[in-house]
Formats: sequence, structure tokens, C-alpha cells
Amino acid sequence: MKKLQEIAEEISRNTGVVTSAKDVEKILSASASTNHFWEIITLSQKPFPVVAEAVEILRKEGFVAVTEEKEIKFTEKGMEYLKEQNIFPKRTYTCPHCEGRGINLSLLSDLIKKFDEVTEDRPKAISDYDQGFVTTNTTIARIALMAERGDLEGKKLFVLGDDDLVSIAAGLSQMPKEIVVLEIDDRLVDYINRKAKELNLPIEAMKYDFRDKLPEKYIGYFDTFITDPPETVDALELTIGRGISTLKGEGCAGYFGVTLIEASLEKWNIFQQILTSKFKVAITDIIYDFSHYVNWDYLLTTVGKPYDFVQVEPKLNWYRSSMYRIETLKDSKGIENVYKPVEIYVDEEAIIYKGEKK
Amino acid sequence: MKKLQEIAEEISRNTGVVTSAKDVEKILSASASTNHFWEIITLSQKPFPVVAEAVEILRKEGFVAVTEEKEIKFTEKGMEYLKEQNIFPKRTYTCPHCEGRGINLSLLSDLIKKFDEVTEDRPKAISDYDQGFVTTNTTIARIALMAERGDLEGKKLFVLGDDDLVSIAAGLSQMPKEIVVLEIDDRLVDYINRKAKELNLPIEAMKYDFRDKLPEKYIGYFDTFITDPPETVDALELTIGRGISTLKGEGCAGYFGVTLIEASLEKWNIFQQILTSKFKVAITDIIYDFSHYVNWDYLLTTVGKPYDFVQVEPKLNWYRSSMYRIETLKDSKGIENVYKPVEIYVDEEAIIYKGEKK
Ligand SMILES: [Fe+2]
Ligand SMILES: [Fe+2]
Repeated sequence: MKKLQEIAEEISRNTGVVTSAKDVEKILSASASTNHFWEIITLSQKPFPVVAEAVEILRKEGFVAVTEEKEIKFTEKGMEYLKEQNIFPKRTYTCPHCEGRGINLSLLSDLIKKFDEVTEDRPKAISDYDQGFVTTNTTIARIALMAERGDLEGKKLFVLGDDDLVSIAAGLSQMPKEIVVLEIDDRLVDYINRKAKELNLPIEAMKYDFRDKLPEKYIGYFDTFITDPPETVDALELTIGRGISTLKGEGCAGYFGVTLIEASLEKWNIFQQILTSKFKVAITDIIYDFSHYVNWDYLLTTVGKPYDFVQVEPKLNWYRSSMYRIETLKDSKGIENVYKPVEIYVDEEAIIYKGEKK
Repeated sequence: MKKLQEIAEEISRNTGVVTSAKDVEKILSASASTNHFWEIITLSQKPFPVVAEAVEILRKEGFVAVTEEKEIKFTEKGMEYLKEQNIFPKRTYTCPHCEGRGINLSLLSDLIKKFDEVTEDRPKAISDYDQGFVTTNTTIARIALMAERGDLEGKKLFVLGDDDLVSIAAGLSQMPKEIVVLEIDDRLVDYINRKAKELNLPIEAMKYDFRDKLPEKYIGYFDTFITDPPETVDALELTIGRGISTLKGEGCAGYFGVTLIEASLEKWNIFQQILTSKFKVAITDIIYDFSHYVNWDYLLTTVGKPYDFVQVEPKLNWYRSSMYRIETLKDSKGIENVYKPVEIYVDEEAIIYKGEKK
């Protein structure tokens, strides 16, 4: 019977994404606890093409069968393989009250309601800027997290890219003193400014491409920044470096999401070296599956056609990211405030990680 | 009126612990939301001597008063100071169902019950080895976390130091294939081995001082390690380095607690540089306040006498730590398996962080 290592090598060859035997183990473990393709990604936290190719190989080996409803089910042969390989169905102990974030949103139910009302006419996510916004629970949990850590109330908040409309939620919470949004999408800039005016919120949004120099006045100006960066190493370094450069000094905080679905742990390591050694900040929190993304409209029209079993409507918000919080120290520093040309949405690791052409 | 910076400098001078204006802000914010000394530490996550000295200074300034019941209450003058300094009472949004860990323990209620029964006669925490064990909920949440991440079931688990009796909880869960405990305290070694025999659990405990060479057979042997290290940089580096050296290779995991109460963020940064650059592991999770420690018997007899307001029975498990999870990559490596003489329980930062002489 095929070894995990052999399956891993076959996946690497066919997808161009480096895959280990342990990755295959995690995909098998996830597949053993759900029949739904998109949930296998959520439970294994592996890139879309890797999971798809793994399932395809398992099918070819006769370990799983795909039903007419595109459910992925282990065969008897597959079950034996699991046993032989000492692999168990993935266990889940997520707190159902807080979706695993550890945050009590019931204290903020008014804010949730208000945010949903106010943003009902929000702009749709579009692929041009790799958009995909998060659930309302996620947005409000971000507000709660920042508030709990003392990074929101009475503070100046910088939002770098805001398809999630964190600025509006923060404004509605009435906690920050000032909120500045820099965002590349004109639709969002206009939308946020219009809402801010209508609701009299202390938000100012401006058009900005994060490769450009920041407005000089914002260097060393804010207490807190939040962003959801593209996941190439260069883009991570640039966005977070810019974020840090806007902070006032010691004891300020940055918040941002990083996935395991689009970024390998090798990349996490390189990025964590940059954070701790180059930027000299402390990582205070990494909260697993904190951000849940609303399934974007353009998903099923862009996912790779070769696999029939991926052509199924997701039953859950399958795309998740971990929430990082960093805090600045005495010697922390961001990057120089100059134009930096980087390739934003594509990197050497993969092109269609999320299930979309970039 | 005194500036935050001046208060910070006074604290630094009187305690020898570097303290920033932001630290003082956090202590003020915490004090504004509770009257209970030990809860101020929990909410501000600052070292014991820093919080005690801060409260003392606030009292001298007339910002707080200490009642007969040793409650710490803001005066009108203090309230004005908070307003002037733009400081707000600390907000708390902790999910009450999971104590903020994000883990659903109700799925493991049998294990909780069994663990409490089995360990009712556990050895008391003693100051010789800087002991202080965690609550049952914490121990079982560790089991759930390891299980959920695929690091427990069918795996070989290494427990380095085990006053928390994680080995017994893991054994009772029937998930690991093999559990090895290395522990310096004879009482615990005997206790764990006796329980393992009585209950027929796959645990072996041996006496070991973490400065010593590890048994050669355990190098590259385990899937997962867990430990609760002393918090000097040297001890952190040594324990986690040894832990990593016992792992089998790529995709294995390590779990350990680090506090903000005993370790400054400067120390977190240095330690994170070691993890990411020297050991080349990825930090996958840092879960705030994951571990709650049962208040140790010897606490009030050892806390610094100069402050009357600290001589009050803690109303909560005030001492907490964050849970780190690391994962090994292709190029990860621990430390050489040789004897390393390090000063274990004392470091340059502070002697009585927890409120005890070490
Ligand atoms: Fe987004
Ligand atoms: Fe919860």
C-alpha cells in the first residue's frame, strides 16, 4: 500500500506546492470526520490545491468514493488504510458559544445588530483586489479583542485596507478617538466616507496602494493598527512594516490575520523571524480560526475545473485565518517610508490557494 | 500632576523592574475595573512587585484609598486623573462558557470527573521547585487542545516536569500510545508511577533535572511534548530546546506556558527570536490566559510584607499563563544533548515576580 510519503510526493509533483507526509495525515484525518470537501480544508487547514489533489489521489487508490451529491466517503479499503497508518478522525472541541474565539459577543449584541443594519448595502467582494470579507461576528470580535487589550478606547486606530468595514464597526462602538482608513478600492473609500458622514463617526478614508509611501503625517501617529494582508512574504513584510511605522512607540499594538490555507508554516516561520528580529516586536497572541470569511460570490466560477468534487456549494464559511496581535517594544521599528514595488497577490508557493485565479 | 512616565520611573527605581508609561496605564485601567489586588494583576498582566508598587504610589498620591477589607478604590482625585490621562476601566469580554480558551469542555466532562477523583490525593505544591499546579479545567483543556490539533491520539507524548499531572489526564483520555514523564520531584515521580500502575495507564515517570543530558533513547522519539518552563531566558531556551530535540522530525508539536506576569514582553521577544531563528520552529498558537493556576498554599506567607493591601486572600485564580504551540519544520532543531548548567528560577528581571521568594 502507498505510503503517506509517496502520496505527499505525488501531491507536490502535481500541484507544485511542497507537501509533507504530516500534511497528508492531516487531510486524511479531516476527511475521516467530514464528507464535505470545503470542511476538509477547514479541518486540515491545508491549501485548496493540495486538498483537492489529495482527495483525487485517495479516490484513485480506492480509499474514498465520491457520491452523486459530491460527498467524499471513506471506503472499507480506506478505513483499513487509516487504521494501518495510525490515523484517527479529526476531533473538534470548539466552544459553540464563541466559535472558539474565547470572546463573549453577547455583551455586544447591540453593536452586531447596528453594524448589520448600517452595512446592509456594503459593496460586493471583487476579485480585483483579492477581496473576501469576514462575518459580522468576526468583525465585532475584532472590536472586542482590541477593546479588551486596551488598544481601542480613547485611541487612534489605523485600518490598512478595509473590505471588512472594521472602521465602521469601531466607529459605531464609540470607543476610538479617531479612525483612519487607507484603502485601494474607490468603492470602499466612498462607501466608508459616506457612512461616516451619515452617522457622524470619526472616520476618514482615503485611497491608497500599500506599495506607496504613507502620508508623512501618519508616521508615529497611531496607537493601534489592523489589517488583513495578502500572504506573500513580501506583502506581509511590507504591510506590517508600514503598520508598525505608523505607531507612536512602545506599548502600541498591531492586529492582522494570517492563514494556514494560503501560507505554509515555513512561511509563518520566515515571517515570524521578520517580526521578532527585524521589526523587534513581541507576538502576544495567535488565535486560531479567529476570522471566518463569508464565501465569496466568485468562488465556484473560478475554482479549478479538473476536480468534479469541488463543484459543490460550501456548507460553511470554510476560509479562516488566525489572528495575530503584536506589541511594540522600546526598540521596535517598521520600514522606511518609501515606495516599494512588490508583487502583491501571487507568490512562488501557489497561484490558486483559495480556489481562485489571482 | 504626576505624569505616567514619572510613576513608571518611580516603580522602576523602587522595584528594579523596567516599567513603562504604558505599563502604568494598564495597571490604572485594571484598578479602575476591580477593587481586588490580585485581580488587578490578572487584568493588567504585570509583575507582582510592579503592581504592588504602583498601587502604593497611587495611594500616596491620593488617587486610590485602601479600605479596611483591603479593597483598593479610586478617589475622586484619582477618577479625575484617569479622565485627564484618557484612561478607561479595563473591559472584559471573556466567554464564560470556556473561560476564554475557546474549548468546549462539556464534551470531556467524564474525563474531568475521573481526573478529579483519581488525583484527589495529589502531592501539594512546594516552593522548592517553584511549583504551582493548574486547575482541572486547564489540564483537560490542554488535553482537548492537543487532541484537536492532532498531536495526541495514537501519539507518543513527552511531559517535561509534571506537577500539573497532565500525564495522568492524557492517560485517562486513552488517546496517547505512550507517555513519558521526566520530573525532578521524587514525590511526583512516585505518585505518577503508582497511579499509572493502579489504573493501567501507559505512563512511565522518571526522575530528571532538566539541566542534565536526556536519556539518549528519547532523542527524536516523540510526536509531542508539553512543559511549563521556568521563565528565565536561559531556562526557556533549555527546556524548549530539549523538548524539540526529543521530537521525531517535521510536523511534530510542542506545548508550553509563558506568562506576562513573570516575563516581560522584551523577554518574550528574545525568546521568540530563539524559537523562530535558532530552533527554526513555527509558532502556531499563543492563547491568552489559557492556564489558570490554583493559588498555592505558601503564597501569603511569602509575599512582600511592606504592602498591607496584598495581605488578602485571592478571590480568583489570579496567576495565568499564555499557551504556546510550536510546530517543527524541515530544518528545525533543538539543542545538543549535554549537561547545561543554568540558573533556573532566578533572573536579572526580578526575584519575587509571583509574590514569592525564589
Ligand atoms: Fe478581507
Ligand atoms: Fe467560549
